This record gives sequence, structure tokens and C-alpha cells, in this order.
Amino acid sequence: MKIAALAGGVGGARLAHGLSMGLALSGSAADLSVIVNIGDDFEHYGLRICPDLDTVCYTLAGIGSPQTGWGRQDESYRAAEAAEKLGGPAWFRLGDADLGTHLERTRRLREGHPLSQITADFCAAWGISCRVLPVSDQPVPTMVLTEDGELPFQEYFVHRQCQPVVKGFRFEGAAQSQPAPGVLEALNEADVVVFCPSNPWVSIDPILAVPGVRGALSRKPVAAVSPIISGKTVKGPAAKMYAELGIAPSALAVARHYRDLLAGFILDRMDECYIEELSRWGIIVNATQTIMAGAEGRIRLGCEVLEFCKAILNAQKESTA
Amino acid sequence: MKIAALAGGVGGARLAHGLSMGLALSGSAADLSVIVNIGDDFEHYGLRICPDLDTVCYTLAGIGSPQTGWGRQDESYRAAEAAEKLGGPAWFRLGDADLGTHLERTRRLREGHPLSQITADFCAAWGISCRVLPVSDQPVPTMVLTEDGELPFQEYFVHRQCQPVVKGFRFEGAAQSQPAPGVLEALNEADVVVFCPSNPWVSIDPILAVPGVRGALSRKPVAAVSPIISGKTVKGPAAKMYAELGIAPSALAVARHYRDLLAGFILDRMDECYIEELSRWGIIVNATQTIMAGAEGRIRLGCEVLEFCKAILNAQKESTA
Repeated sequence: MKIAALAGGVGGARLAHGLSMGLALSGSAADLSVIVNIGDDFEHYGLRICPDLDTVCYTLAGIGSPQTGWGRQDESYRAAEAAEKLGGPAWFRLGDADLGTHLERTRRLREGHPLSQITADFCAAWGISCRVLPVSDQPVPTMVLTEDGELPFQEYFVHRQCQPVVKGFRFEGAAQSQPAPGVLEALNEADVVVFCPSNPWVSIDPILAVPGVRGALSRKPVAAVSPIISGKTVKGPAAKMYAELGIAPSALAVARHYRDLLAGFILDRMDECYIEELSRWGIIVNATQTIMAGAEGRIRLGCEVLEFCKAILNAQKESTA
Repeated sequence: MKIAALAGGVGGARLAHGLSMGLALSGSAADLSVIVNIGDDFEHYGLRICPDLDTVCYTLAGIGSPQTGWGRQDESYRAAEAAEKLGGPAWFRLGDADLGTHLERTRRLREGHPLSQITADFCAAWGISCRVLPVSDQPVPTMVLTEDGELPFQEYFVHRQCQPVVKGFRFEGAAQSQPAPGVLEALNEADVVVFCPSNPWVSIDPILAVPGVRGALSRKPVAAVSPIISGKTVKGPAAKMYAELGIAPSALAVARHYRDLLAGFILDRMDECYIEELSRWGIIVNATQTIMAGAEGRIRLGCEVLEFCKAILNAQKESTA
């Protein structure tokens, strides 16, 4: 069974890791392609930073920080401290080992290599066996429309710590962008597409905004894992964004967000109250423990999602038989 | 007494530090301006690297590596190791704390600040009391003409480890460059200009190549310290370059290099044999221990050079009286 997963940062990376480990158990780790959000990418200190891509790769490679979910394990901050002593901005702190990634990526981008090729080469160096694909080789930066005006994503997310009230989002240059090589192939070859428990507004929507992605998805069964549990998120501003946009944050709201694409939906046991309504929509629903505690939690949820994908495929076979 | 010193990397930085400490003893550290070679500057991993400027500043600030003479003390290399694991070039290794300098300099250059202003701000942050001036705010990269073709300086110096046989030098864009703000002022206000024991071909000549510098020097007494002792250099390829260009490497060859500018020349006691000939040229000569061992060695030579500068000024007063 071939899986294409759409992922943002920490939660997406953790489920991608779980799916990768789950597929590896059946000897087919290469059957996973992870298509990653690039809307958070930005330039900092002259370097190209791709936070979600790095979080996904570090997590899959087992070199990520288990404490934060982003950045590298056992990280030091000597370069950042030295730059800050000289008056450099301190709001987005780059770790020393992490800097190695940004330095080499920036060097290769300057030489004209596309981000997707650089990512593939980095994955090989890190021993990652599944495919990791930035959704596009062109920058498609997410702009957050707030009551304080339009803010670039990292300005909103890290510098302003998600304080400004959100009014909407804009994915700059999306209409002119193309999917990176491999993205449409991965979607077309996938048996099931999984939306990881990432922020619908600023992790999954920016992927869907790249021309061709929605079209490819419309021909595939899509299973989404809710990032919202009991109206809250484990991490990140998804629930706060729903509330500020006038939508009660819930697993149901997430399912409604993706409704036209969904074949299946996985929500937390805390949210079993929504199963009945979702079933009425014709969506296959599964309730489980969606919080992933440690590597065990990732592999457990990964295997459950893979079983759920099989169930969706079986149900589709039965309905067409 | 106001001093302007021309300096390249390690040897120049050490004497600049000695001059700074010597002037500080008489309470006038601010009377030193160090005009630094920028011919070695280059882009690496998308960052602007200014090796001589950093060596001078780290040395003056007391944060340089005493072992190598360049780079920072107690340095780590986590970013470089991480980049190299991804296939990044390993021939010019950037330390983590050192990277902080390049990151903030690159960030500010991108914002449009001139290198001279950035350097002044960095010196303030590092607590450096004398003035440090890049000779120009425009890049003037040194190209080394070799039997293997023309090589950018760092390609010759670090990557090829000075192996290619030298045929000449070119200072790209020198004719179109201007002295950075403060450079001509420092030279015009100086009582004596000191050429530090730096490489005449690739440290001092690139400074002299910036329009206006030679003119300002021609109106000032210049004292040079020989970087060549007994036909050899403490560090760097100056002696090798002289030999490859068909000139026997010696303190005499260095004095001849600067002949039209020199009022005084300091050579090592090992080279006292040249005093007679140099005196015939009308140059005031002093022989001393020119190798600087530790901070004591720097301050000793710094004070001796300052005394020598006074002697030059007194001799000039006597000759005009």
C-alpha cells in the first residue's frame, strides 16, 4: 500500500515518523512520500530557513529534539549568542547544528539547485528511507491577515507569538507556483492520502493551494487525522485561529474544513460525540488515542492510520463490487 | 601621537594589538586607526566572510584563538560538521561563534549598511577602543595569477594551500573603489603610518591599490615592519611569493617593495646585515626581535614601534629645523 502524507511541523512530522516506522515493519518504508508545507519558509541572516521541512526530516532521521519537537537534539547556540551580542535579532534562534542545514541548503540554492533535489540529497545523507518532498520548488510564503495588518508567517508565529487576532490567510505566489517534481507523482501513485494532524489553515491549506494538488487529491481517498482534541491543540495556534475566525474549534470543524476531500477521518476518543454526524456525511470515522507519546506513541498511531487506510480501501472495493 | 596602521591577518593583527596596548599605556588608545585589507574577503555558504577584518578585531578584543592566530578562542565546529555531513565544502571551516559574526554582518549588509559602519558597531560591541577600518566599503577581491591560471585568493590560499606557483596579482575593481569613510581622514590625521608585518603582495598592496591611499601616504612618514626574517616568514606565503616572482626573499626585498614610501624600517636582529644598505637609501632603520611571543611580545614590539615612530618624527623635525 502506497501512502502520500501531507504534513506541517511537529505533529505532522511525528505521524510521518509513525507511518514510516509502520511501513518499515512490513518492509515497505519506501512506500511513503511526505509532502511538506513550505509556507513557513523565510530568509533569516541571509540564510533560507525551511522550518517544516527540517522538522519532518530531523524527526524521520531521529536527530530531532524530543523535547521541543523542532530543532536538533543536544543543540548548542554559540553562533546565535555571538550574533546577538553584535545586535542581531534574537526572536528566531538558530542552533549550531541546525545552522549546518541552512548553510548547505543556502549554498546549494545559490548554485541553482532546486529545493526538492537538495531535500532528497539531505534525506540520503541522513539515512531517511521514505521520500520527503517540499510541495513546491518556488517560495509560496504564507501571509497572515490580522487585526494588526498582514504579517509574514514567522513574524506572526514566532516574533509576535500568535498574539495578533487572525482574519484570514494568503499564500503569496501560489497561483503561479508549480508542484515540485515528484509531488503529483506521489499523489497519483498513492493508494491513500493522509492529512497529518497539522494546522489546517497554515500547514495543510498552503499545500492544497499549489495548483494541481487539489485535482490529484480529488481522485484519491483522503484520510485526515484531527489536530484538534476536545477543542484544543496539543501544540500551535489552530484552535485559536478557528475561534478568531468565528468557528468553534473542534474535530468536527476540522472535518468540515476538508469535507469535500475526505473519505475517512480519525479523531480522538475524547471527540467520539462527533462520530454520528460525520458518519451521516458518508465519511468513515475512527476514534483513537491521537496524542503520540514518545516513539511508541508514533508507531502505534502510525500503524492504526495504516490499518484505517486499508479499511477505507476495502470499503471502497465493497461499494464498487 | 596619532598612528594609522595598515594590516592584513595574523601578524598585522598582533602588532595592531601591541600598538593598541602601547598607546593605552599612555592613555591614548583612541589614537590608533587600523586600516585593514579586504582583498581576502569572499562569499562562503551565502555569507560574507572578511578574514583579515575578523582576525584584527578578534585579536584586538582578546577573543581570538591564541593557537592559530585566526578564528575565536575555545571554538566549536558543530555547524560546519553538520554542513559537511550534507556534502558541504570542508576546505574553509567556519567555527560556531565565528559564524555569529558572519551571520550578523551578512544580515546587515543585506539591509544596506556599509561594511565600515558594521565594523565600527561590532568593535563597539566587542569593547575595542581603537578604530578598525576596512580599506573600502566596496569589494576589491585579490586574484592570484598562477601557473594554473587566475585563482580567487581563498581558492589559492586555503583550498590550494598556496601550492600553485605565483606569477602576479590583480585587485579586482580597485580602480573603481573608494576608501571607506574614515580611511583618508585616519591617514591625513596620522603623525606616522605603520605598515604591520603583513604580506606585502596580498595584505598591504591591496590596501595601497585603493585610489587615494598612496596619495595620502606620500604626505606622511611611513614605518614598515618586515614580515620576512632570515629569508623566511613566521606564517603565510610572502617568502614563497618573492621566490616565485624571481626575487630573493629578504627583509631587504620588503624594504625595496615599499621603497618610495618609506621613512623608517624595522627588521629583525637576524637581518642586521641589511642596515648599512638601507641607511644608504636615507631610511632610518631599527633592528629588534620582531617575533611576538604572547601578549608580552606584542606589547614589547608595539612599544618599540611607537618609540621608533617618535624617533622618525624627531629626525624629521631636526632635518627641517
